[in-house]
Amino acid sequence: MSPDFLPTLRQRFGQQCSTAAALCEQHGSDEGSITAPPPMAVVFAESTQDVQDAVRLCAQHGVPIIAYGAGTSLEGHLLAVHGGISLDVSRMNQVLQVHAEDMTVTVQPGIRRKALNEAIKDLGLFFPIDPGADATIGGMTATRASGTNAVRYGTMRENVLALQAVTASGDLIRTGNRAKKSAAGYDLTRLLVGSEGTLGIFTEITLRLHPLPEAVRAATCTFASIADAVHTVIETIQMGVPIARVELLDAATVGMVNRYSQLSLREAPMLLMEFHGSPAGVQEQVEQVQAIAAEHRAQDFEWAETPEERTRLFTARHNAYFAGVQSRPGSRCITTDACVPISRLADALLESVQDAQDSAIPFFLVGHVGDGNFHFGYLIDPDDATERDRAEQLNHRLVSRAIAMDGTCTGEHGIGIHKQDFLREECGDGAIAMMRAIKAALDPLGILNPGKVFAA
Amino acid sequence: MSPDFLPTLRQRFGQQCSTAAALCEQHGSDEGSITAPPPMAVVFAESTQDVQDAVRLCAQHGVPIIAYGAGTSLEGHLLAVHGGISLDVSRMNQVLQVHAEDMTVTVQPGIRRKALNEAIKDLGLFFPIDPGADATIGGMTATRASGTNAVRYGTMRENVLALQAVTASGDLIRTGNRAKKSAAGYDLTRLLVGSEGTLGIFTEITLRLHPLPEAVRAATCTFASIADAVHTVIETIQMGVPIARVELLDAATVGMVNRYSQLSLREAPMLLMEFHGSPAGVQEQVEQVQAIAAEHRAQDFEWAETPEERTRLFTARHNAYFAGVQSRPGSRCITTDACVPISRLADALLESVQDAQDSAIPFFLVGHVGDGNFHFGYLIDPDDATERDRAEQLNHRLVSRAIAMDGTCTGEHGIGIHKQDFLREECGDGAIAMMRAIKAALDPLGILNPGKVFAA
Repeated sequence: MSPDFLPTLRQRFGQQCSTAAALCEQHGSDEGSITAPPPMAVVFAESTQDVQDAVRLCAQHGVPIIAYGAGTSLEGHLLAVHGGISLDVSRMNQVLQVHAEDMTVTVQPGIRRKALNEAIKDLGLFFPIDPGADATIGGMTATRASGTNAVRYGTMRENVLALQAVTASGDLIRTGNRAKKSAAGYDLTRLLVGSEGTLGIFTEITLRLHPLPEAVRAATCTFASIADAVHTVIETIQMGVPIARVELLDAATVGMVNRYSQLSLREAPMLLMEFHGSPAGVQEQVEQVQAIAAEHRAQDFEWAETPEERTRLFTARHNAYFAGVQSRPGSRCITTDACVPISRLADALLESVQDAQDSAIPFFLVGHVGDGNFHFGYLIDPDDATERDRAEQLNHRLVSRAIAMDGTCTGEHGIGIHKQDFLREECGDGAIAMMRAIKAALDPLGILNPGKVFAA
Repeated sequence: MSPDFLPTLRQRFGQQCSTAAALCEQHGSDEGSITAPPPMAVVFAESTQDVQDAVRLCAQHGVPIIAYGAGTSLEGHLLAVHGGISLDVSRMNQVLQVHAEDMTVTVQPGIRRKALNEAIKDLGLFFPIDPGADATIGGMTATRASGTNAVRYGTMRENVLALQAVTASGDLIRTGNRAKKSAAGYDLTRLLVGSEGTLGIFTEITLRLHPLPEAVRAATCTFASIADAVHTVIETIQMGVPIARVELLDAATVGMVNRYSQLSLREAPMLLMEFHGSPAGVQEQVEQVQAIAAEHRAQDFEWAETPEERTRLFTARHNAYFAGVQSRPGSRCITTDACVPISRLADALLESVQDAQDSAIPFFLVGHVGDGNFHFGYLIDPDDATERDRAEQLNHRLVSRAIAMDGTCTGEHGIGIHKQDFLREECGDGAIAMMRAIKAALDPLGILNPGKVFAA
């Protein structure tokens, strides 16, 4: 890197550019368990032109550039492992265009999911994708995020219609359009969704919205065993019930959530469910699932009768990560994120529970189980290297188990730094070679978030 | 090309390789309106190894290779515009694996959609994607096909879970897995879906299946004007009614279909609808749509009461293309395939109807209007160059209209040769440059179906 780089950057961006140590530290870390030295500077982009100029300067000087939204990723996506700068897009947080009659919205990448939903709620529409964190839409697009509603509404893969993005050379491209389907050329939209900032930086994102359901009901239901809960889910999905949310928590995790969120849920393996539809449709779904649950010796459903109660329950579920970490003071969490075909969910979960119990490492267990997606959080002492090793081994066995069942090493968190070996195990060398060829073709200088997805 | 190529090919493939003129002619054309000289040979692949060996031989000799399924594409996808060989995969037509409990199936690329549905029907499952032709799953994957059920079940984009493919160097890769969602690396599956044989040749395809609906009802309904029919569809979609199929035919097209398929449908602008769900759910949908249609002065719904009647109606709809061509003996059809956001459907359709009527060229009009997708078929005299020009101008204006409405030049047929200028108009130079960079990286010799999507 030439000594001119930082002065040139400062000249172009003035007050939007900072090298303050605390700011760089904050931008060089995420909510995962890996650390690295911080980026050398943070640039706050306020426009598409800013993004283009920052990328062009980095290209001219061969400096890595890492797009930053809310800092909530979990697999080391934001770490400046090859140095460079952080490009913070959180100020680009506007809703640009709403087409309520088509149920689409175009936003800047820095808007957060809750702010987006607040902005559109009076239209009778919502954006369903809800990772635990209040992430930015840009970050969610970059990691192909999903969350509790994905079982019914799909993930970012299904809900991003079009993109405007800055390429590694600083050029602006548009992919996709607002038509519901298209057979026009290579699906660049889907290629960029989940590319973790390594192929382009988003400046506009067009999303599909959904009508707020006419009727919503939510319930919890506890079971004598995790197996009973999981089999209830499997049969619900196999019956084709269009359930909107179905989350699993094991007994210990319910206890952690109770203490963190001041709830008094029964501490047993629990499903947390939500049903969307017409009043008659919701009633039909509820009856189907109650019948299935009864066959698996479920306790009665406990209904959250008001919107506030529903929000409280799902907020508590979204805070399970923090509830888990708080349950072991001073701990750091190693989170898993496997996803398997629904028929293998019981095997994948129960073997992994047994393995975790045998390890004696405290853990929590939650899952978007309707998708076959589940998360263990291993709560390790960050100063105990052997504990970290054992947790990583637990994670490795869990992932290998999922891959052997024709599943994936990550349902929604992405690869980042942490899962590169797992990606190879899952995809094989041929697919990795194809990904690398695409990366080399689209970013020949390797400046876009290098060292993520695969080693630079 | 070296003179060794054909002898080497014959030596490897023996009876599976033919240079018979009629066979080459057949493999060098599709159901579209463009012609080109035929490929020099046809190789019938019977295994993944055959595909790999054929691609490797072509790579060694720099010879183009064009995968061929059922020959039903519409935009010149199969034409040997740069010479080379046709690789016919129709003998690779086996169902390899069914996981009924996960609703997935893995097939070879040469199986046709009707044969697939026949093979799985006893499982209570079906594969919904239904382009007019009885195409192969490989071809449907390559063109990102959809059809009448896409409004509810999505297109090949949403229904292909995983692929095994042979790359331009003859290597075998696997993309995706059977988990319902994944955030693992670049979405190579979605990149290959719709790549029209230019990035790889499929050898195995894993698809999502759907439960056969408990209740199905189908109806036709006629209107005083196309506008009334279209506004009924727009409001149905905007209300969130999960209608399974909603097809539009204009009055003249209903007449053509009546004559071709021996039906006696009322010759007026018509919607052909199908509702899937539980009995109560279907009843609810029907009542909602009937109420909307009544506001637009619809005639009464006429119900197809038996499965046979339903099949007869939708078969007639699928044969609209042939009905149209037969309505003007000796004609050739230039088919359009625009798709727009649903709120713009009436504008796009009615302006294009007016334009076509002004031209005095006979045409038919059908559409998967729930997706905003519609097709005009301009029936031209193939010996009249000015008529072809005028039809192409109609098509050009129609596509430009759709693009200006934030729609696409092709909802489901793909780009092939015919729509390359439209693709540029729709995507802009930046996105085309990105597509070309990907093509150059993954097929540096340019042997995989060269000259399609964009000029070689």
